[in-house]
Amino acid sequence: MTRRSSTTSSAPMGCRRDRWRGVGSTPPEGAAAAGPTGAPVTGVAPDTMPDGLLGLATALVGIPSVSHHEEVMADAVQAALELCPWLDVVRVGHNVVARTDLGRDRRVLLAGHLDTVPPAGGNDEPHLEGSTLYGLGAADMKGGLAVFLHLAGRLDTPTTDVTWCFYAAEEVAHEHNGLRQLWAERPDLLAADAAILGEPTDGLVEAGCQGTLRVRVRLAGARAHTARPYAGRNAVHRLAPLLTTVAAYEGRRPVIDGCEYHEQLQAVSVEGGVAANVVPDEATVVLNHRFAPDRTVAQAESGIRELVAPHLEAGDHWELVDASEGAPPSLGHPVLAALVAATGTAARAKVGWTDVASFWAHGVPAANFGPADPLLAHTAGEHVSAGELAAAAAVLESLLTAAI
Amino acid sequence: MTRRSSTTSSAPMGCRRDRWRGVGSTPPEGAAAAGPTGAPVTGVAPDTMPDGLLGLATALVGIPSVSHHEEVMADAVQAALELCPWLDVVRVGHNVVARTDLGRDRRVLLAGHLDTVPPAGGNDEPHLEGSTLYGLGAADMKGGLAVFLHLAGRLDTPTTDVTWCFYAAEEVAHEHNGLRQLWAERPDLLAADAAILGEPTDGLVEAGCQGTLRVRVRLAGARAHTARPYAGRNAVHRLAPLLTTVAAYEGRRPVIDGCEYHEQLQAVSVEGGVAANVVPDEATVVLNHRFAPDRTVAQAESGIRELVAPHLEAGDHWELVDASEGAPPSLGHPVLAALVAATGTAARAKVGWTDVASFWAHGVPAANFGPADPLLAHTAGEHVSAGELAAAAAVLESLLTAAI
Repeated sequence: MTRRSSTTSSAPMGCRRDRWRGVGSTPPEGAAAAGPTGAPVTGVAPDTMPDGLLGLATALVGIPSVSHHEEVMADAVQAALELCPWLDVVRVGHNVVARTDLGRDRRVLLAGHLDTVPPAGGNDEPHLEGSTLYGLGAADMKGGLAVFLHLAGRLDTPTTDVTWCFYAAEEVAHEHNGLRQLWAERPDLLAADAAILGEPTDGLVEAGCQGTLRVRVRLAGARAHTARPYAGRNAVHRLAPLLTTVAAYEGRRPVIDGCEYHEQLQAVSVEGGVAANVVPDEATVVLNHRFAPDRTVAQAESGIRELVAPHLEAGDHWELVDASEGAPPSLGHPVLAALVAATGTAARAKVGWTDVASFWAHGVPAANFGPADPLLAHTAGEHVSAGELAAAAAVLESLLTAAI
Repeated sequence: MTRRSSTTSSAPMGCRRDRWRGVGSTPPEGAAAAGPTGAPVTGVAPDTMPDGLLGLATALVGIPSVSHHEEVMADAVQAALELCPWLDVVRVGHNVVARTDLGRDRRVLLAGHLDTVPPAGGNDEPHLEGSTLYGLGAADMKGGLAVFLHLAGRLDTPTTDVTWCFYAAEEVAHEHNGLRQLWAERPDLLAADAAILGEPTDGLVEAGCQGTLRVRVRLAGARAHTARPYAGRNAVHRLAPLLTTVAAYEGRRPVIDGCEYHEQLQAVSVEGGVAANVVPDEATVVLNHRFAPDRTVAQAESGIRELVAPHLEAGDHWELVDASEGAPPSLGHPVLAALVAATGTAARAKVGWTDVASFWAHGVPAANFGPADPLLAHTAGEHVSAGELAAAAAVLESLLTAAI
């Protein structure tokens, strides 16, 4: 743990920002452009490296950090934060938490995950088209990380205390989630009055999040030779009415704090079959249900089970595979209300599950706010523009420097 | 090749039958009961080993011969047939063909496969309940093989020439089929006016066989996050109307030579799914169609495609995976008509595909006839009774010794 007293915060900001802009400076002859910790930045010629926020985002996209491989990224972020004497920086695994300690009445936590999904369609090298950055993680969520790092290095005297939380392994099974590790090992670092998750939201507040659950439904049948199917019962054929019901599902659209959620039910996988000439005696379908935060996991599971019940019989099998509670919008909280106001636009519901629910489960109201289009997440063509980055930074700077 | 002149056929039958009965004789102290070639016969205590046909069938079940492991079984059959001086015995791979050469006007070929499916439910050791033999292959088709071997060793002067054909690898992919090997390497050995396949048929003639084909239908969709499925299209949901149509299929029941066939359509496997939170962009179903022998593969495929067509769109994929033509009943042929007459019962249609079609494809009319219930094939509890074996042997002996 590196502890720097806030009394040393008179170090010139320009110097520190120069360090960040340094990722775009011309490298020595024959050397590749280098990120904050010397990690090579690929795919962008040194002489076209953009300045400022876009340059920072480009540098971050240039550091590979697919889930479970966040170490270099965490090193870079840690090194950058340690340049700021007003931040206490703590490293836990590949998670980095940096906090001000200004004795303010409120503390706002801003969190973002360091990892990305695996590359797709050759998007592992960043490239620029005008002032838009393309590359793995550009939208989800290195654009958001760039905004956070930019502000962390700029706001030496915010009007609320601020916790910057950079965590690993959000894009994989929850057991690996860095935030989960922090809650288990250092919950003190995550204490806050409200939290903002920097996932891409198009620069709007996406409030709360829907819950999610998966159930595996196994339909039974009886094997027989396909020339004499009447001697058995085809479990795959039994999928037909069940899938018809699932496909016709119309989800509830409850409005909470002015945000309309939209429940969904999707078959995400199906499987069945014994051999080329055998009537299958088993067919399995996995359903993913997304439910509004006015329902618990138990209520949501019960609702889906009731829907599917007419197609189930003795001998079939129902299994809750996994589930995560949602989080209500909590827009009545002063910090989140101020965030919405700073965007100048009404909040909308977050229909996907995010770690907002993890904060809510620990009593911290939270919302999603970040640059880039959320529909681009996990696509080969994800991107973020300089304008989106600047707008998100302006909203957060306004929130964190407002008179209180 | 072993050639024995029929002029040596005066060797006493009793002697040879004693050799077969020898499988049931009390072995030397401490030794296991042994089959014709010394292969151990397991699961039946020597002092309870039954006599005659049932004993022969028990010995054959006691020789493991799962597909691709037929060598010991082929050795045993070859050794037994070579005891009969009126038979030319030829070994090709693990196939054994034994022929009389009496200069008769007609030649009847009797064929049976040596292999079994893998054991199920501990049925790899034969056991007797009264005069019923249980064990792997008892019904499919070591009961039939026992009848053939019994008659081969008994009928030294049949009224038609006879070809006994024992072949390997019928229960696995057709490329391995021993009959196919014989057609390729020694078609002369399979020349005949008519053929009888000793598959289990309950002691009736099961005429011809239905054809079979499999098609793989791949439905396309578009990926999306399951929280926003409206951004994509769920290919698994598209299975619903297709499977509804398949499940509601009512097959034709054409009557040919007095035998009613019954066409079938079954989904034998289904597959789809990308990840826990992704709307699947692909779903695949494999359909198995059994069609009556008044249709070709091309006609049958076209009929199924027409049925499914309303559910297909541009971007979907249709693939004929494999197909085998059926065989008509051919009950007008004098040998097959005489076989039906010998059973004293009307023939019925064979709704499954059998190697009858292989003979028909080479111009040889053929039918299925053998002891045991065909519905027991490939089940853990397959069995055959002494009465069934004796009845089948009597029918074939009558056919092969009738005045012509």
